[in-house]
Order: sequence, then structure tokens, then C-alpha cells
Amino acid sequence: MTATSGPRPVRAARGTSITAQGWQQEAALRMLMNNLDPEVAEHPDELVVYGGTGKAARNWPSFDAMVRTLQTLKNDETMLVQSGKPVGVMQTHEWAPRVLLANSNLVGDWANWEEFRRLDALGLTMYGQMTAGSWIYIGTQGILQGTYETFAAVAAKKFNDTLAGTITLTAGLGGMGGAQPLAVTMNGGVAICVDCDERSIDRRVEHRYLDVKANSLDHALQLATEARDKREALSIGVLGNAAELVPRLLAMDAPIDIVTDQTSAHDPLAYLPLGMDFHDMKQFAKDKPAEFTQRARESMAKHVEAMVGFQDKGAEVFDYGNSIRGEAQLAGYTRAFDFPGFVPAYIRPLFCEGKGPFRWAALSGEASDIAKTDKAILELFPENESLARWIKMAGERVHFQGLPARICWLGYGERDKAGARFNDMVADGTLAAPIVIGRDHLDAGSVASPYRETEAMADGSDAIADWPLLNAMVNVASGASWVSIHHGGGVGMGRSIHAGQVTVADGTKLAGEKVRRVLTNDPGMGVIRHVDAGYDRADEVADERGVRVPMREGDA
Amino acid sequence: MTATSGPRPVRAARGTSITAQGWQQEAALRMLMNNLDPEVAEHPDELVVYGGTGKAARNWPSFDAMVRTLQTLKNDETMLVQSGKPVGVMQTHEWAPRVLLANSNLVGDWANWEEFRRLDALGLTMYGQMTAGSWIYIGTQGILQGTYETFAAVAAKKFNDTLAGTITLTAGLGGMGGAQPLAVTMNGGVAICVDCDERSIDRRVEHRYLDVKANSLDHALQLATEARDKREALSIGVLGNAAELVPRLLAMDAPIDIVTDQTSAHDPLAYLPLGMDFHDMKQFAKDKPAEFTQRARESMAKHVEAMVGFQDKGAEVFDYGNSIRGEAQLAGYTRAFDFPGFVPAYIRPLFCEGKGPFRWAALSGEASDIAKTDKAILELFPENESLARWIKMAGERVHFQGLPARICWLGYGERDKAGARFNDMVADGTLAAPIVIGRDHLDAGSVASPYRETEAMADGSDAIADWPLLNAMVNVASGASWVSIHHGGGVGMGRSIHAGQVTVADGTKLAGEKVRRVLTNDPGMGVIRHVDAGYDRADEVADERGVRVPMREGDA
Ligand SMILES: NC(=O)c1ccc[n+]([C@@H]2O[C@H](COP(=O)([O-])OP(=O)(O)OC[C@H]3O[C@@H](n4cnc5c(N)ncnc54)[C@H](O)[C@@H]3O)[C@@H](O)[C@H]2O)c1
Ligand SMILES: NC(=O)c1ccc[n+]([C@@H]2O[C@H](COP(=O)([O-])OP(=O)(O)OC[C@H]3O[C@@H](n4cnc5c(N)ncnc54)[C@H](O)[C@@H]3O)[C@@H](O)[C@H]2O)c1
Repeated sequence: MTATSGPRPVRAARGTSITAQGWQQEAALRMLMNNLDPEVAEHPDELVVYGGTGKAARNWPSFDAMVRTLQTLKNDETMLVQSGKPVGVMQTHEWAPRVLLANSNLVGDWANWEEFRRLDALGLTMYGQMTAGSWIYIGTQGILQGTYETFAAVAAKKFNDTLAGTITLTAGLGGMGGAQPLAVTMNGGVAICVDCDERSIDRRVEHRYLDVKANSLDHALQLATEARDKREALSIGVLGNAAELVPRLLAMDAPIDIVTDQTSAHDPLAYLPLGMDFHDMKQFAKDKPAEFTQRARESMAKHVEAMVGFQDKGAEVFDYGNSIRGEAQLAGYTRAFDFPGFVPAYIRPLFCEGKGPFRWAALSGEASDIAKTDKAILELFPENESLARWIKMAGERVHFQGLPARICWLGYGERDKAGARFNDMVADGTLAAPIVIGRDHLDAGSVASPYRETEAMADGSDAIADWPLLNAMVNVASGASWVSIHHGGGVGMGRSIHAGQVTVADGTKLAGEKVRRVLTNDPGMGVIRHVDAGYDRADEVADERGVRVPMREGDA
Repeated sequence: MTATSGPRPVRAARGTSITAQGWQQEAALRMLMNNLDPEVAEHPDELVVYGGTGKAARNWPSFDAMVRTLQTLKNDETMLVQSGKPVGVMQTHEWAPRVLLANSNLVGDWANWEEFRRLDALGLTMYGQMTAGSWIYIGTQGILQGTYETFAAVAAKKFNDTLAGTITLTAGLGGMGGAQPLAVTMNGGVAICVDCDERSIDRRVEHRYLDVKANSLDHALQLATEARDKREALSIGVLGNAAELVPRLLAMDAPIDIVTDQTSAHDPLAYLPLGMDFHDMKQFAKDKPAEFTQRARESMAKHVEAMVGFQDKGAEVFDYGNSIRGEAQLAGYTRAFDFPGFVPAYIRPLFCEGKGPFRWAALSGEASDIAKTDKAILELFPENESLARWIKMAGERVHFQGLPARICWLGYGERDKAGARFNDMVADGTLAAPIVIGRDHLDAGSVASPYRETEAMADGSDAIADWPLLNAMVNVASGASWVSIHHGGGVGMGRSIHAGQVTVADGTKLAGEKVRRVLTNDPGMGVIRHVDAGYDRADEVADERGVRVPMREGDA
């Protein structure tokens, strides 16, 4: 180890030769590095992985110290990470996680951007987003499956199970938002995607997530209507400010069927205000954060007002988890919450089954390992058609970024089966190296987020944050390899608390037992959270699949 | 088990015959019940243990379900408790805690009393305080040691190591505040203690924490000055509203040397407003919470203004962790923060050594078990004089409430030794039954609370809440028997996040290993938290006692 303390290209090791004391530690090391791989991270030099400012390490000296510590960490030791900086190493035991992380957490009355930025400037914290600071970001594919599922649900709800013949309007082609065009076309539809950063557009074209770049808004609309009329799938990027172009399309009476948005609205310093040149944005945000915030919020109000306008005309409109409604409301726009968030609209029924973004990566670095796991998934769940469709399309269309990885949504009673199978495949040599199994913090029972995952809960318990904390603790208690608790995530300071876990299937018997427990208990939190909130579907799942809920057990 | 679902007297079982599947579960069962023992709890029928509204269980059906679940819980199962209600049982492993609890946690923007009360009224949460919802409250002794240490530090700072010849003025003789008179007299001083509830005064007299009850303020002052002049220790209770009596004493130019307060100011619905009769208080708070809050805050402003007045005249004045300064400020009093909190003033140097409120209880129910552990402590740390003085005085003066218990402040490298010794004493039959070892959430590395434990941190990191979350996770990972994460505690909604652990020394080899790890890592969090914040004393402790801090380990 040299004590380099500045930016440099980082890429995880591949293959079976390891530099740590065991695969659990090696996995953490590789996944930390993989998050910063230039193929994966949005701004690797600044340690920014995705979501505006979501980082994998607080600064380069912290990165170096984590690497050094992970390489010497024993099988009964645990490294503690406080907002991207390693602060301790303690003796635990072999069932314990090797790494525990807490990122961006602030006491309630101080849980705002102003205090966060003050602390960030002092070097005392970092923004962890959901999978950036917890080392399980796998590039745009991560959100692609969720986005695919969401648009499939929109199609099921309003358009006879297909988006063919419809036009979707959205904005934001960044780390998460870049999945939207492909998710729409995978569902047969046409998408117009606005972004103010030409590089975001070009990058999605290069990765085949986006089909074409239009020269102008008129050009985009023309391409869109032509494809729609032929019921062809097509995704179109167009350069511009969404706060300008979305109202313009409304004024033009453009035939839009579905409207959403994934600009980085959760952070008002990352949303381009009206009338500002994209290239001046960064400097302006730095020099005059208060003025920038005010202008960004006012622009978002215009943007959201136009979205409501489309809804008034009959379009299907939803907030895609970036808090744009909340920001527009702060700017004084009163109808901001007229359209719903995507979770209550489409995702909650899945959460009742403990379903959520199950994902895994091949530490071998070999694409063939993922192909083999894809096959295993198809064999394990032959009756699940939409899963099969996704796995097939993903195999064809998804461009790996960094270590080869796969995601699919699995529920309670499914994830543990998949994990156990993967561990067996490592044990018997089918796979070239261990598999890392994790998930997004956006999951069935791992997040409290009243503008997104827990919006409009049936019992009004949206803001109760006990659940993600129990989720983290039960994952620590079940044998996860690393566990994290974050604040803010995709919706920003003061708006969410969420937890994540990653568990390494290294082919050992112990790993098999850990995988089975973690991948039962982790989605189990989703089932019990929704049982507690009064969802009938969750009750059914608990009954059918044997999830224990003490208040439902009596003496009778 | 009968399905009684209403109030009834609860008392923990004693002795070695157990109804649960093992001592770890039995310990949780007994400590839950012990928290509700009429000798221990302030309002057992309402499940309220202490601190205004701090509860051990959400409601009686939840209590019944927890008892039922604990009695059948296996050695590799874990019960999950969400704000006093059991919500799940999951398979974990034998190193895992048997219970995981999260109480009163809310997402930042909703972390206020209004939302909490709305959710509480819906039956969706409860207030856990610090040791109420985490089942390790041991009655007034719990706070006595901390209060004793604090007044000893005041004496050391300003009065030549003794309070003899001084008068302390305080208010609040409730669950926590009731320790003040005895702590002052143990330090040789005179205390005048105001409370508006005659029962609080009578109870402290009955338990010998308070020496006498005065007939009037004048009488109290007369008794106080007489005792002070003779340099005798004396504690005097006086009935009345502190918001009236403290300003009155200031106006009278009473010769007060030290002023503090422990009314339940953290909850503005539990502080008696000026001009309201004590007997109307409860109903009024229920009927008109907003008006009550406003009046309570205005009264606190008067109370705090008088405290500042005493400080202006040269008295030693400090906030004793009940947020009264914050509430007074909310009422518009601008000098509220002119006097410091007790932690930066007296306690932080102890936190740098990982020192904090180590406590234990004898599951046998036998006082002789505690006497034996007292002796063990004196043998283990013969060089620590103030510890010896405390243990001796506590043995003579402390009236046990519920299961016999002891508390003393021990630091990094001490707690593990004490825990291991206790476990040996259970193993070899010296003690009649296992010992439960826990602590207050108010500890060196387990709390983020900018108005109390983390007020005025050297690096400005007061509001960073990563630390208590890491503390909880590392305790889960080290073998604690139950672990809890709470919000609010002694300072109220939005103002703190804190964690607790309890570990059972049942005499087995496994328990011995767990005890050693937990009681090393738990205070270790205090050391690394203060190393990170830049305290030299913490650096020294880390060096001397071998606490690993990755950023201090280099290649050189
Ligand atoms: N729905 C979900 O499940 C989910 C999950 C994670 C994150 N999110 C949220 O989605 C949002 C996008 O995340 P991301 O990782 O893609 O962020 P990102 O920062 O990588 O990308 C944001 C994109 O928006 C563009 N943009 C900013 N202002 C704009 C404007 N006024 N007009 C047009 N384009 C503009 C930027 O140029 C950038 O390309 C974030 O708010 C994130 O928190 C949602
Ligand atoms: N310093 C610490 O370490 C620490 C620890 C825990 C709690 N606390 C805080 O200390 C405070 C007291 O806790 P507690 O458990 O004793 O609470 P409690 O509710 O048991 O007792 C409060 C007492 O204050 C009295 N009171 C209320 N308003 C009054 C008024 N206007 N004038 C005179 N008396 C009044 C009540 O009658 C009651 O006896 C709380 O705010 C608590 O959060 C401090």
C-alpha cells in the first residue's frame, strides 16, 4: 500500500487471488472499489457514485485507510465506518458483519441541507445516497429493473399491459434516470427524455439505453408521434431545461400519455434553474447556494405545475421518488401533491410480499458467472413469466458496468432460495468465484420515507422510522457481511431513514447459513411492516409463507 | 398465559426457576416486568416507567404478546419490538441478541411532538425514554450515581472538592430528579428542591432520598441557611411551581451557590404552567395541548430567566439535560443558552475514557448478590477512591426498587473486567442467579444529542447521528442480549438519537465471551467518538489501552 491520498482510477480486482484475509473482507474491498470504477461512478475523482453527491468514501485518505484496514481485517473483526470514514476496528465474531456503516445521519432538528452542508464542508460527513455509501451500486441496471417494473405496472393499470402506442415524457438521464428510456421501450412504448447535460444524453446513447438524440423539441415530438403511430418502441433524448420544455409541451398540447421525472430534484443545488446556463451551474451553486436553491425551487414549481396540467388533461402522472413535489411546494405551488408517488401507485402491493430489488455481482469479474446465475433463476422460478421476460431481456440488452451483476425483484421465500443456490454453485465450482448479494435501500421493509416508499401508508405510519433501524439490526443479527443505515437517500435531508445489507455467498457452509437467514429475515421485514400497517395482502403472505407476527398469535 | 389485556400489578420472578427457554430470554422477561414493578415504575397502570411518558410496552395487549413470545423464544430466535409492540420473530443464531428494539423513531422532518402525539394517539408508537423502552431502568439509583458524579465535579471545580457550606437550588423530584437531594447531601451540601406534586416530595422522603419537607419557601430558606452555616448536609423539599419560586428566591436575594433543574421540561405537556393548579394539569394538557404548551414554555422562560439571574450574581448554573433552555428559547427568551449543559461542563472528560453509567441487576432477587458484586468491584479497582466512596455509600443509603441492582461509572478496559468477573461468579455459584448488565443510553459513545451529551463538541459534530447507530449495530454484532435504538429520550422529539444494550452474564462460557466483547466495544465507541472529535484525552486513552482507530494507523 502506498499512501497516495488523491484521485486515481480505481477498479476492483477480478479472479480468485485475494489480498484480504477472507472472501467476506475481499468482497467489501472489491465492492467499495467497484463503486468507484470509472465505468460505474458518475464522478469517480470526487468519489461520487450516483445521485448527485452520493459517495462511496468521505475523501481519498479515508478510502486508503478503508482499503488498508479491509486487507488486514480478521474473520472475527469488524470495521466501523462513519459517513465514509473508518473510525474503528473491533473484535466481534465470525457470524458478525465485517463492516458496519452509518452515513449522513443527523438528529431530527438538524436534519436539513444547511446543517448537512456545514458539516460536509468541515469534513465531518458525506452524502451516502442509498447504494453509494453502502458499496452495492451496480450502475444503471440497478434502477433499470425497478423502472421496468414500474412502467409495466403503469401499462397494466391503464394501457392493456403494454406501452405500445403511448408516449411517455420524462426528464433526467443521470445515474438513475438514465434507465427510463430503456424501461419504456422494453415495455413497447415511446419515451421523450429531457436533460440539460449533453453528456448524460450521449452516455445513454453509447450504452444503448437511449435510441436517438433529437435536434430540437419539435424534432423529438415528430419522432415520437411517428413511432407511436406505428406502435414502435423508441426512446428520444432532447437537450434542454425540463422546467422550460415540459411547460412548452403542455402549451403545445403535445399528445403525452404518461409523465414523470428523474432530475436530481432531491438536492436543490443539483437542479438547473430556469434562465441559468448549464455550464455556469456548478460554480453558481457553490458561490450562492441560497440564491441557487430559491431559483431551483421556483423552477421546479413551474415544472410540477406543467405535470399537473398534463394530469388535468388525462395523462398518467407520478412522482418518481426525487422529491420534486416537496420542493415545488416549498416554492409555494399548492397543487404539487395532486399526483401520487410511484410507490403507493404501483409498488406497495409488491412490498406486501417482501418483493424488492434483489441484486448480485460476480466477484470473478466473469460475465459467464452471471449467465449461469440467470439460468439458475429461470430454473428456480419457472412459473414467474414477468421475471423470465426480464432476465431474458436483461441478458440481451444490459451492458455491464464494472463487475458483472444482475438484479431482479424477488420476494419473501424466494430470495433465500436464490441465495442458497448461488452459494451451492460457488461451493461446487460451477461459478468461478463468490457472489455478492445485496439490494437497494429502497426495499419492502428497509426504509421510512414519507414522500416515497412509505407515502400514504394505510394506517398513517408514514414517518415512523423504527422499521429501517430494526431492519439494520436484524440483518446484523442474521449474518450479513456488511450493513448500513443512511439518512436522506434519494429524497434528501430530513425525508428518509433507510438501511441496506450485503451478504457474500463464498461457498462455505457458514455462508450458506448466513445467506439463508439474511435473505429470509430481510424481506421478512417488508412483510411484517405491511402486516402492521394493515395490508391484507401482507396478512395473506404471512399466513401462506409462515412469517411470525406475535400480535397475531394468541392463546386460542 | 391468560389473555388479560388491562392493567394489573406486575413483578418480575425471582430465583432460579425459569419460565423461558433460556436465561437470555428469561432475563429480558424479568427486566421488562421489573420496569413495570410498582416499586420501580412511576405509573405502572399506564405502563409508564419514568421521565413523564417513558413506557416499557405500548399497551397491555403488546405486553402480553411480548411475555408470551419471550417464554417460547428459542436460543436462535430474535423478537423484534417496534415502539413497545412485538412485530416479528425471526431465526438468527446463538450469538445474536434475543430482542431488538426501536422506539419512538421518526423521520427528521416529522420528528416533532405534534406528529409523535398524532401517531401515539393512533396507537402506532410510544415514548421509550432511554431505559424505559429498553428494559434496564433500575429506579432512582440509576440517576443517583450520575447526579452524584456531577455534583462531585461541581464541587471539584468551584468549592474545594466538597459542597459543605453551599446551598443548591433545583426543581423536579420525579423519577430522575428525585436523585438530586441525596446526591447533594452525599457531597456534603444543602439542597432546596421545588416540586409542584406533593406525592413526588413524600415519596423521596419515604425512600430517604430527601431529608425534610418545608412548610413554605421561607421555612425552606431558613432551614437551608442554618444547615449551611453549620456546614451540615441537608435536603429540603418545598411544594410549589418552580417558575414562581425560583424567580421569588432571586428577588429575595437568597444566598444560592448552585442552580439547576430537573422538572420534566423536555415535554412541554408535563411542565406545570404558572397560574395553573397542579390537579387541573393533566386534564388541561389533554383538552388544550397547544394552549398548554404555549403557557408551559412561557413559564419555563421565566424559570430560566431567574436561573440566568442567579448566574449573573455568581452562582454555578447548569442545564441538567431536560431541554429547559431550548423550550425557554422557543418562548422567545434570548439568553436561555447563557448557562451550559452539564455534559460539556463536567462529564465530557469522563466520556473520553469511555466512562459512563455501567449498571447491573441480580436476577435472583437477592440483595446479597449485589453485596457480593459490590465487593468484587472494590477488589477489581482498588486504586479508584471515588468509586470506592460511591460503592460504600450506595450500599448504605440506596433503597432497592424492584430487583436489587447497582450502578457505577466505569470506563474502557474496566467494564469488560467487571462483566467477566460477574460471569465467573455466576459460573462458580458465588451468585445465586445470573446478572443482567446494561447501561443508560446516556453514555460516552451511544448518543447524539446537541442539547445534552453532544453539546458543544470540539469539532462542531454535535448533530451527527451516525455514532449511536454504529453503537447499536456493533453491540448487536458483539453478542448483546438485547439492543435498542431510541429517539427523543430525555431531551424530547427531534433532539436526540441514542442506543442501549443489555448483556446477560449467565455463567456460560459463551456468555463470558459475549460479555467481554460487548463491554469492550460499547465503551470503545465513546473513545473513538471523542478521538474523532479531536479530544486529546481520548487520543491518550486509545494509545494507552489499545483502541484501534484506522485513520491513526499509517504505513509509516
Ligand atoms: N425512483 C427511484 O427509485 C429513485 C431511486 C434513486 C434515486 N431517485 C432519485 O431520482 C433522481 C435522479 O437520480 P440520478 O441518480 O439520476 O441523479 P443524477 O444527478 O445522476 O442525474 C440527474 C440528471 O438530471 C439532470 N438535470 C438537472 N436539472 C435539470 C433540469 N432542470 N432539466 C433537465 N435536466 C436536469 C442532470 O443534468 C442529470 O443528468 C434523484 O433525485 C434521485 O434521488 C429515484
Ligand atoms: N440529566 C440527565 O442525565 C437526565 C437523564 C434523564 C432524564 N433527564 C431529564 O430530566 C427531567 C426530569 O425527569 P424525571 O424522570 O424526573 O421526570 P418526571 O416526570 O418523573 O418528574 C418531573 C417532576 O417535575 C415536576 N414538575 C413539573 N413541572 C413543574 C413545575 N413547573 N414546578 C415544579 N415542579 C414541576 C413534576 O411534578 C415531577 O415530579 C426530564 O426532562 C428528563 O428528560 C435528565
